[in-house]
Amino acid sequence: MNNITYSFETLYKIFMDELLQQKFSKSPKELYEPIIYTINQSGKRLRPIFTLMSCNLFCDDINKAMPQALAVELLHNFTLIHDDIMDDAPLRHGQKTVHTKWNKNLAILAGDTMYALAYRFAMQCELKKLPVILKTFNDTALEACEGQQMDINFENKSLVDKTDYMLMIKYKTAVLFGASMRIGAILGDANEKDIDLLTEFGNNIGMAFQLKDDLLDVYGEQQKFGKQTGLDILESKKTFLYISALERADKTTKEKLMFVYRKNNPNPEEKVKDTKAIFDSLDIESYTEQIISDYVNKSLQKLDLVNVNKERKAGLEDLANRLIYRSK
Amino acid sequence: MNNITYSFETLYKIFMDELLQQKFSKSPKELYEPIIYTINQSGKRLRPIFTLMSCNLFCDDINKAMPQALAVELLHNFTLIHDDIMDDAPLRHGQKTVHTKWNKNLAILAGDTMYALAYRFAMQCELKKLPVILKTFNDTALEACEGQQMDINFENKSLVDKTDYMLMIKYKTAVLFGASMRIGAILGDANEKDIDLLTEFGNNIGMAFQLKDDLLDVYGEQQKFGKQTGLDILESKKTFLYISALERADKTTKEKLMFVYRKNNPNPEEKVKDTKAIFDSLDIESYTEQIISDYVNKSLQKLDLVNVNKERKAGLEDLANRLIYRSK
Repeated sequence: MNNITYSFETLYKIFMDELLQQKFSKSPKELYEPIIYTINQSGKRLRPIFTLMSCNLFCDDINKAMPQALAVELLHNFTLIHDDIMDDAPLRHGQKTVHTKWNKNLAILAGDTMYALAYRFAMQCELKKLPVILKTFNDTALEACEGQQMDINFENKSLVDKTDYMLMIKYKTAVLFGASMRIGAILGDANEKDIDLLTEFGNNIGMAFQLKDDLLDVYGEQQKFGKQTGLDILESKKTFLYISALERADKTTKEKLMFVYRKNNPNPEEKVKDTKAIFDSLDIESYTEQIISDYVNKSLQKLDLVNVNKERKAGLEDLANRLIYRSK
Repeated sequence: MNNITYSFETLYKIFMDELLQQKFSKSPKELYEPIIYTINQSGKRLRPIFTLMSCNLFCDDINKAMPQALAVELLHNFTLIHDDIMDDAPLRHGQKTVHTKWNKNLAILAGDTMYALAYRFAMQCELKKLPVILKTFNDTALEACEGQQMDINFENKSLVDKTDYMLMIKYKTAVLFGASMRIGAILGDANEKDIDLLTEFGNNIGMAFQLKDDLLDVYGEQQKFGKQTGLDILESKKTFLYISALERADKTTKEKLMFVYRKNNPNPEEKVKDTKAIFDSLDIESYTEQIISDYVNKSLQKLDLVNVNKERKAGLEDLANRLIYRSK
């Protein structure tokens, strides 16, 4: 029987109830405080909800996928805590990052602990599904590390190839969306073909999501976005926007952009303003929106091929579209 | 059939061959370089060899336990890399620590990556054993994090209770020895009772091992030990020796020791010398050796009860005894 299709809002509520009733307040309390702090932040919970929605395509009992929904959220939060240390980020979801509120050492250890907690949840499933669930989960964790290293490597390169950039965001961000969908589908008893299609749906949505993040850093409203805008520019990050701008610019503009974007630019306000002006002159905002839209369309094509009736897929379709129009 | 008992030396060689032929040199190379560097350091490989020996008590085919032997070694190395950052340790096995040779960010990420690799190996076993192997592995990883936090907490306490200290080293160090033995026994098809006995063997050996480490920090020879001696004293660490000295000292000596051991003692050489002199006056070296010996005896009693003929247990017995007499 397969009759109930949960909306995003319902799943969000169900997931948050489940997340917040977990007993993370164990001893030593110094270790669990930053974990509880991180969990209580106002994240979008996209990944766990993708897991639950993916399961729900095939099965009414979404609780089957709840431990793994918790696992992907914890894995994601673990990577955020460690990435924020490496990126020296002061804010996350509009609040102080863990290493800023406490210190780097505690942020390292709290991250490690969340990682172990994530596996504890990930392994709670039917025995026959355990190897494939864990393999998916583990491969994704490894790729997230590799993606983060690629991102760090870009810092020391003056020119980054767009193919390399796309591979980096795939590993760093997109594969966890793919894995979230994949794990949900496996737990919902989907067939191999549908599992692969939904993984592809997730991977493409993940790409769109990250590109939208790059876009919001420049064109978002700071209050809604929850992070300081222009931060990527200030840190001279090789984002999709910057790489695309270099690609599209003529020789003079390219030289000007590279000069403005340089790390030791002494005037941060002008750096952001001048960069934006060059981006605007090259139509980078609408170009990036187009690429995002392409990824979303690709993901929707995959979803369309999944052997489930159209009404059940409406929630995922809606969520995919919302990601393009989001302001945070 | 159960006929071949491998010696420590043979298992060391077999394990090292296996470890070194693993393909860790993947992309991005910046991420895998510190992993390979860490793996190639001259560790004692006690934990994986305990896993193999434990398996070998019940089964000739030690290859059954090889992936998990690799997993416990990688898990151990991951904790070392991250602990060394938190402890600001310059040396490990006589070589620069990862964050000193490269930087903290890379040490964080390389540690995370080793952790994921550890799970990849841990999950390579018969399906029916997978849940219990993973639970053992995961619980241990979590306890190692909790133990590290307890250790950090002690830094800000002027007096540490010995019971709290023993719990800290149990979590931070001993449980991984216990888990290494437990996992090996499970993979060797031991019965429940023997699995538990060997876990206890490992836990007690782990306690002895950590206390010996505390002892060697003060009374070891720097070259053999591979770490700078006196480092715990210089950092005012609440070690077993320090806590025991405070317990055994009269009021005047206690006050003197606390004064000498204070964090802002401006004279490091005198700090080490004076602390040692107080330790000597209180017979701390032989007292600690006695406690170590108690733990080793307790572990041997557990081993004695394991339902395997005596000859097969000789290797573990020998290794346990060697841990008391080690100089590094």
